Amino acid sequence: MNTKVMTGLMELTPEAQLKFEQIKSTIAQEFARFGFSPIDTPVLERSEILLAKAGGETEQQIYQFKKGDTDIALRFDLTVPLARYVAEHYHELVFPFRRSQIGKAYRGERPQKGRFREFYQCDIDVIAQDQLDLSYDAEMIQIINSVFTKLNLAKFTIRLNNRKILTGLLEGLGLEAKSTAILRIIDKIEKISPQEFDQELSKLGLNQDQIQNLNQFISLTGTPTEIIKQLKKLPISTDKFNQGVTELKTVVDLADQFGVSPENYRIDLSIARGLDYYTGTVYETFFDDYPEFGSICSGGRYDDLASHYIDKKLPGVGISIGLTRLFSQLLENNLIDFTKKTVADVLVVPLSTQEITLANQVAQALRQTDINTDVLLADIPIKKKFKHADRLGVKQIVVIGEDEAKRQLFTLQNMTSGEKTQLTLKELVDKLAHN
Amino acid sequence: MNTKVMTGLMELTPEAQLKFEQIKSTIAQEFARFGFSPIDTPVLERSEILLAKAGGETEQQIYQFKKGDTDIALRFDLTVPLARYVAEHYHELVFPFRRSQIGKAYRGERPQKGRFREFYQCDIDVIAQDQLDLSYDAEMIQIINSVFTKLNLAKFTIRLNNRKILTGLLEGLGLEAKSTAILRIIDKIEKISPQEFDQELSKLGLNQDQIQNLNQFISLTGTPTEIIKQLKKLPISTDKFNQGVTELKTVVDLADQFGVSPENYRIDLSIARGLDYYTGTVYETFFDDYPEFGSICSGGRYDDLASHYIDKKLPGVGISIGLTRLFSQLLENNLIDFTKKTVADVLVVPLSTQEITLANQVAQALRQTDINTDVLLADIPIKKKFKHADRLGVKQIVVIGEDEAKRQLFTLQNMTSGEKTQLTLKELVDKLAHN
Repeated sequence: MNTKVMTGLMELTPEAQLKFEQIKSTIAQEFARFGFSPIDTPVLERSEILLAKAGGETEQQIYQFKKGDTDIALRFDLTVPLARYVAEHYHELVFPFRRSQIGKAYRGERPQKGRFREFYQCDIDVIAQDQLDLSYDAEMIQIINSVFTKLNLAKFTIRLNNRKILTGLLEGLGLEAKSTAILRIIDKIEKISPQEFDQELSKLGLNQDQIQNLNQFISLTGTPTEIIKQLKKLPISTDKFNQGVTELKTVVDLADQFGVSPENYRIDLSIARGLDYYTGTVYETFFDDYPEFGSICSGGRYDDLASHYIDKKLPGVGISIGLTRLFSQLLENNLIDFTKKTVADVLVVPLSTQEITLANQVAQALRQTDINTDVLLADIPIKKKFKHADRLGVKQIVVIGEDEAKRQLFTLQNMTSGEKTQLTLKELVDKLAHN
Repeated sequence: MNTKVMTGLMELTPEAQLKFEQIKSTIAQEFARFGFSPIDTPVLERSEILLAKAGGETEQQIYQFKKGDTDIALRFDLTVPLARYVAEHYHELVFPFRRSQIGKAYRGERPQKGRFREFYQCDIDVIAQDQLDLSYDAEMIQIINSVFTKLNLAKFTIRLNNRKILTGLLEGLGLEAKSTAILRIIDKIEKISPQEFDQELSKLGLNQDQIQNLNQFISLTGTPTEIIKQLKKLPISTDKFNQGVTELKTVVDLADQFGVSPENYRIDLSIARGLDYYTGTVYETFFDDYPEFGSICSGGRYDDLASHYIDKKLPGVGISIGLTRLFSQLLENNLIDFTKKTVADVLVVPLSTQEITLANQVAQALRQTDINTDVLLADIPIKKKFKHADRLGVKQIVVIGEDEAKRQLFTLQNMTSGEKTQLTLKELVDKLAHN
């Protein structure tokens, strides 16, 4: 029987899984540090809930099936379930509602490199009633910065824009009717050549002047302050454009005040997130040395989260990390080092069955000091026991034989250097607790 | 649109979710303390994999669907995926393989109280090649004891048996042909009356003597030592029975040596786990004061994990906690107290937008000392800010107004007593870090 997982699913060996869990729990911890409370909605949703918000390609990708009378679908992201959750629990929530969710989502993607059918999303959002201050948009930059600084995977830059600037500009150029199509092309700018970019715009009916204007605009560079200065000088004066510039300036100023290092974020006027429902600030995050990863953390501000499900205006701002995709890219680029095949920090090795009870006691003492401890209870030859320790990749083992049992002195053996030390139980616990 | 989750799914409010997460992470942590490494197999499996091991009722309950050419099913437990995983990654694993998995599983159950269609299982197993020592069976008792002691939810008792004793007994009574059916009836003993129990056995063709023998046998009581003594005296001498008694004695003796308090476990000869694939030691765990919860942690020893998928003999022993079911029962019985609606330990409240940057700095200092900290950035009236803090249920808030900003002294306010203290940043961090 074929025991491989289906294409598009990620299944890790224990050593890779340990690293994955480490990253996942660092993200969860940072989300909690900022006061985002976890929620956990079901993977199974009524199909009508998902279909109300899915469109186009996404709808095609939904895993949907019937069981009895129920038309069931697997969630394709964590945002639609959030919208439903907020609508359903509206009266039980305290707004601004800060929620995190780390969970699996599903899309019946065609098998393709980097596309997963089951993938972890790590999301946070702040949802308000009626009105949400721009300071929350700035706080998101602070959080992205904090998460990726803690993860310490690679040097990163958060790229920032405001959807109103782009749409305001297009209005100014008399292109609002083609706005969605143009934003979609801008969204692809990192993936296509400059020639293809111009051609696609041309195909939409833009003339050379318009194409040149757009190109000049989205390639404005400089510090946030410089870019905002240039934006203010542009001969565009639609309300939307001006509002976008003002919002962007506010967010950038606050991000600075909130202590985000200037080298970790910049304005990028080509960030459009054209397929999404964002209405203001938008974020993408890139590893400086691995632009081919694409955005590793994206999000933005939206005017209205749950209008499909509740008659309340619920603006919000949020970000999302596609963890499964990110991890697979980290693996592929050898950015993850595997040190061991077990969650245990220490393996206790009783040399014979005579010592398993003592070994178990020593292990319990270590566990009570928060040290993950495995005991090799198997009655196998001593050589095989050391081979087992070696294969597990634990850095230290505690050996307990007849002599150790008699003297109540335990041998701590460093598996890398081979160094052995004889220690009392108290010394052993102290030493390993401070490792 | 109906925003309720479908019947049979659990969705929690933020305050309940916090408690759920606390329990889940305590379980995960205890599993790690014992050196069980997490794995995370996909929820989606090839249908043929699941159908190879599902039988009867379970098969009916599988969520199964086609997408393109692929026949997909949602896993109904974590054991079948473990079997597939071990077969697939056989050469990459180190045996004895200690794995944990906490994840969702799915069954298309009829809507019924206490039955869930999506539910968390928390599993650990030790898998060996060819032979697995009985000391691992005893270690499982130690782990169940450790997990439920740490969880501190209610007084519990682990009930222990060995399948070989029951099947050996039935052989001795000449009833081996009806063994499966009889074990199934014994399995229901907690749910039916003594009269029904006898009637069901009688319907199977057992005579009064046999029924009486069986009743006497499964109701043997006493300490483990006393029960084993009584078992040895019984006039039954099938090899299987004797082997079962010997195994049970070994496991009980080791559990005692491994420090499991005698009041937390006992032998219960009516534990059959008749529908499962167990071949030796079996466990169930009950809350002493809530027997109606049923078993909250069950498991046992099996001879061969993955014979459907690989031509290797892989014996193992494992346990499983049905967390969703357990949590719903705890909720129903008011055994969970909700203290707050946020993961934040502290809320920082800037009185006006003038103080949000300072508030953010204070929050960052707290976060760096591992204190989960929310900042209320919303520009709303001061009264509403305090109401927000109150509704969130945080025990302490830090208030920062013009005066605090000038003097760099921050007001720590206890939300229960109303007590206010003026503290420097360092004092504030020190005080909250040691709370």
